[in-house]
Amino acid sequence: MLHNQTSKRIWDTRLSEKKRRIEAVKPFTKGKLLPTQNFIQALEKLIVSGDRVVLEGNNQKQADFLARMLTQVDPTKINNLHMLMPSIGLPEHLDVFEKGIAKKLDFSFSGTQSLRISQLLDDGLLEIGAIHTYIELYARLFVDLIPNVALVAGYKADSKGNLYTGPSTEDTPSIVEAAAFKNGIVIAQVNELVDDESDLPRVDIPGSWVDFVVVADKPFFIEPLFTRDPRLIKPLHILMGMMAIKGIYAKHQVQSLNHGIGFNTAAIELLLPTYGQQLGLKGKICKHWTLNPHPTLIPAIESGWVETVHCFGGELGMEKYVAARPDVFFTGHDGSMRSNRTLCQLAGQYGVDMFVGSTLQVDGLGNSSTVTHGRLSGFGGAPNMGHDPHGRRHATKAWLDMMQTPNPVDRGHKLVVQMVETYQAGAKPTFVEKLDAVDVAKEAGMPIAPVMIYGDDITHVLTEEGIAYLHRATSLEERRAMVAAVAGITDIGLGVDSKRVAEFRRDGKVVFPEDLGIHPTEAKRSLLAANSVAELVEWSGGLYNPPAKFRSW
Amino acid sequence: MLHNQTSKRIWDTRLSEKKRRIEAVKPFTKGKLLPTQNFIQALEKLIVSGDRVVLEGNNQKQADFLARMLTQVDPTKINNLHMLMPSIGLPEHLDVFEKGIAKKLDFSFSGTQSLRISQLLDDGLLEIGAIHTYIELYARLFVDLIPNVALVAGYKADSKGNLYTGPSTEDTPSIVEAAAFKNGIVIAQVNELVDDESDLPRVDIPGSWVDFVVVADKPFFIEPLFTRDPRLIKPLHILMGMMAIKGIYAKHQVQSLNHGIGFNTAAIELLLPTYGQQLGLKGKICKHWTLNPHPTLIPAIESGWVETVHCFGGELGMEKYVAARPDVFFTGHDGSMRSNRTLCQLAGQYGVDMFVGSTLQVDGLGNSSTVTHGRLSGFGGAPNMGHDPHGRRHATKAWLDMMQTPNPVDRGHKLVVQMVETYQAGAKPTFVEKLDAVDVAKEAGMPIAPVMIYGDDITHVLTEEGIAYLHRATSLEERRAMVAAVAGITDIGLGVDSKRVAEFRRDGKVVFPEDLGIHPTEAKRSLLAANSVAELVEWSGGLYNPPAKFRSW
Repeated sequence: MLHNQTSKRIWDTRLSEKKRRIEAVKPFTKGKLLPTQNFIQALEKLIVSGDRVVLEGNNQKQADFLARMLTQVDPTKINNLHMLMPSIGLPEHLDVFEKGIAKKLDFSFSGTQSLRISQLLDDGLLEIGAIHTYIELYARLFVDLIPNVALVAGYKADSKGNLYTGPSTEDTPSIVEAAAFKNGIVIAQVNELVDDESDLPRVDIPGSWVDFVVVADKPFFIEPLFTRDPRLIKPLHILMGMMAIKGIYAKHQVQSLNHGIGFNTAAIELLLPTYGQQLGLKGKICKHWTLNPHPTLIPAIESGWVETVHCFGGELGMEKYVAARPDVFFTGHDGSMRSNRTLCQLAGQYGVDMFVGSTLQVDGLGNSSTVTHGRLSGFGGAPNMGHDPHGRRHATKAWLDMMQTPNPVDRGHKLVVQMVETYQAGAKPTFVEKLDAVDVAKEAGMPIAPVMIYGDDITHVLTEEGIAYLHRATSLEERRAMVAAVAGITDIGLGVDSKRVAEFRRDGKVVFPEDLGIHPTEAKRSLLAANSVAELVEWSGGLYNPPAKFRSW
Repeated sequence: MLHNQTSKRIWDTRLSEKKRRIEAVKPFTKGKLLPTQNFIQALEKLIVSGDRVVLEGNNQKQADFLARMLTQVDPTKINNLHMLMPSIGLPEHLDVFEKGIAKKLDFSFSGTQSLRISQLLDDGLLEIGAIHTYIELYARLFVDLIPNVALVAGYKADSKGNLYTGPSTEDTPSIVEAAAFKNGIVIAQVNELVDDESDLPRVDIPGSWVDFVVVADKPFFIEPLFTRDPRLIKPLHILMGMMAIKGIYAKHQVQSLNHGIGFNTAAIELLLPTYGQQLGLKGKICKHWTLNPHPTLIPAIESGWVETVHCFGGELGMEKYVAARPDVFFTGHDGSMRSNRTLCQLAGQYGVDMFVGSTLQVDGLGNSSTVTHGRLSGFGGAPNMGHDPHGRRHATKAWLDMMQTPNPVDRGHKLVVQMVETYQAGAKPTFVEKLDAVDVAKEAGMPIAPVMIYGDDITHVLTEEGIAYLHRATSLEERRAMVAAVAGITDIGLGVDSKRVAEFRRDGKVVFPEDLGIHPTEAKRSLLAANSVAELVEWSGGLYNPPAKFRSW
């Protein structure tokens, strides 16, 4: 039964093709350096029609020079590309489809471009493989979406291709690894070229993995997505933040956590040094964090609440502050931060007790989505943080607190907290009978509705009305009634009678602010450790350097 | 509400301490090189009592020189270490506790040493933090178990500390990153030192992350754990393999998968080029794999079944074969394989459709464990592969096949297949009313029972009796009855009546071999693509070089 039929198969087609392409750009290159001028000519030799091309761009750092150059290749020479794009954040990301250079798209998140994706789909100019979370897309780079070409961004490179990605290391290592170790071609745009490794602050990606470096015509685009101005935190956010701290964080003794971005979580960060301090919780909760360096976390760090922070990515303006707090943040021997989305996602899934996030719509069972009609906005990272990782086996107090049965083979559960006001801006109810995502899926022909976080993963729903401890629900019917108990005067909220709510409160399955001894009148902005970006700068001792749009002084 | 109370806090204690230790070993060092002789004296200055020390050792590669050296430090100088050890595989790993050098242990897996851990616990010489899966422990290295010192192993280093870890890169990048970017000290043992980076095959870990290198007195220990000799595959494995291919792989059109190690999965790998070919399945299933380079996969690769393989780690003897098949495996520009446990775990969780594993005990609801009395054997990686990742959002045919309800917010499910004979060796039933793990947990004071894979994550149970499609169970009671339907003459199996079983078969919820058109008499060893290790070598064209213990010629 031995073989002979395939002995003539060639097993290194990717390697030969890589060598061919590298040979073809020899006239343009000086070692690993590609010219900024004439870059398009080189790119047309390094990419081939039908290639899978992964283009870096996450919710912050963008390989924007490479994205722009790609839109300028000749579509009669290069077409039918299959683009793998974590984030669709720039017009160029979709121009390649409009121009006929690319055809198929696998992506994770599209913010501002989500409407245009839908239009290109309708026009038949774009075909979607699937919509992923970030790490789900990175995972497939090692399985069935292995790239032919990786286009990434760094701050500096030396002539050997060693890269310094510093605070914005983010996704670069995982993307580069998928191409570098499968005979793909890795091209990095950098802001600056230095001669020698000793001129780099440190090496984040070995030159051994990088084929070409090009100096971009301007520094890569980066957006301060994780900065929330304390001025915009409302008393309602403060009330909800107080309830979270007392009714969830302290109750379950949460030691390690991840905060999504939003004014609710910003309020909590700013309440720890004040309200949390009053409750005597310092050193007892919230010691270990996985999140980007939120400026609103500065007061909690400065007052000694925070032992460690590991980051998915960087945040503009926080560079000097982070570098001055190496006992808290992860930094390299050069002193600057190292972020790593893949490892932070791993830490957030398997190493922390709690995720707290917000959303636009929640249905009766707690399923939630940020998708609204006409927009394919994707998933980002929330589904990975906002679920119970069944592969976890170590126990903590908080995790064990979620167990409800005496069954000896029961297990704990990550705390997945949905924190929403019962109404969104424009008097739209947050709690709805059916998520818009369900119809969006039908319209776009998606196999399942784009749910961000599923109800069965959620342990707590917190609104201005109260907290529903959903992990204590004993049936789907009870879960629905508990969600309704905190859904205010939305249709969902009106679907539960007051007697049932009173029972829930008596059993401690639902608590209202007064049950926690919190009076809405206490929820004042003066309770925040900082009331403005300027005060955050002051807390930081002048180390935090906010981007211009957050400066009002 | 601004601060002043903490302005005098020192924020770089880890950095100062690192500098102090590096200064203290200056008399011993030549650049980054530590001497093999007198290494213990240097180690006593680089490690301090109470340190968290992560010692590399996974199910294959071991930093055994460093482990041995650590047992020889003076316990009056260095004690109370908190050891973070992925795998407890060598006697030295526990000697440090017996000698009073270490006190606390967080680990993932202990094979041969599991009995001794229990004894040390009883004797009060060791205290367990928690038992983890591999990546769960790595995750905590970035959260609440940040190491002071990392002790790792590589094949080669240059004088700047650049490491070549090649086919056995495995866990090294994640472990090094946790220490290198939190001002911990990274020490790498290598088999060989070269002068310059250009003398390394490639760089797997930048020297920028490594503080010290020491040439070990002998090459690091590595074990061929993923090699199964086809001689030991029994007709029963072949029967079960045929059922798996027809009743699961083909039925659900599984494109991407992970195989645990065992004779059942080895049989499947060897049946694809024969039985799978007869069924016309080539090119239709099993194209993308995440697993170590199993030698039993060679015939499937050679006959064109396998498009890609990404590996957690290497396998002894497979180096040349893998290097000669770069279109299939991940390799560097030097040609040798690159493995990466963290990324392969990510790929296995979010990028593949199916996990197939085996176990020692299964209870009535499908919960399973390999833990038996008196042994704390840990988890390894199976719980991470063998669960449904709720953070997945992209759809495939196989994943969607697991949906059972018309609920528009339902989702798919990873195929998690438990493949067991109804009886283990020694006539011990596999199916039991209560897992031994439940009593082990009570005896050892563990907060929950050490369950390897939970029943609610399992979609299929396959025995020599048949396949139970558990994802189709509509209640816990039905799930239990379906497990019983394939549990043979165990007590569990005798708990379901034949009428119920007939109903299950009629509804396609359970199938027996004859329902699949498979006759036990077909399940012959001659159906295997290779019947011996020698035949695997032949399939590989002489490229596979099995370790001595697998050679019988």
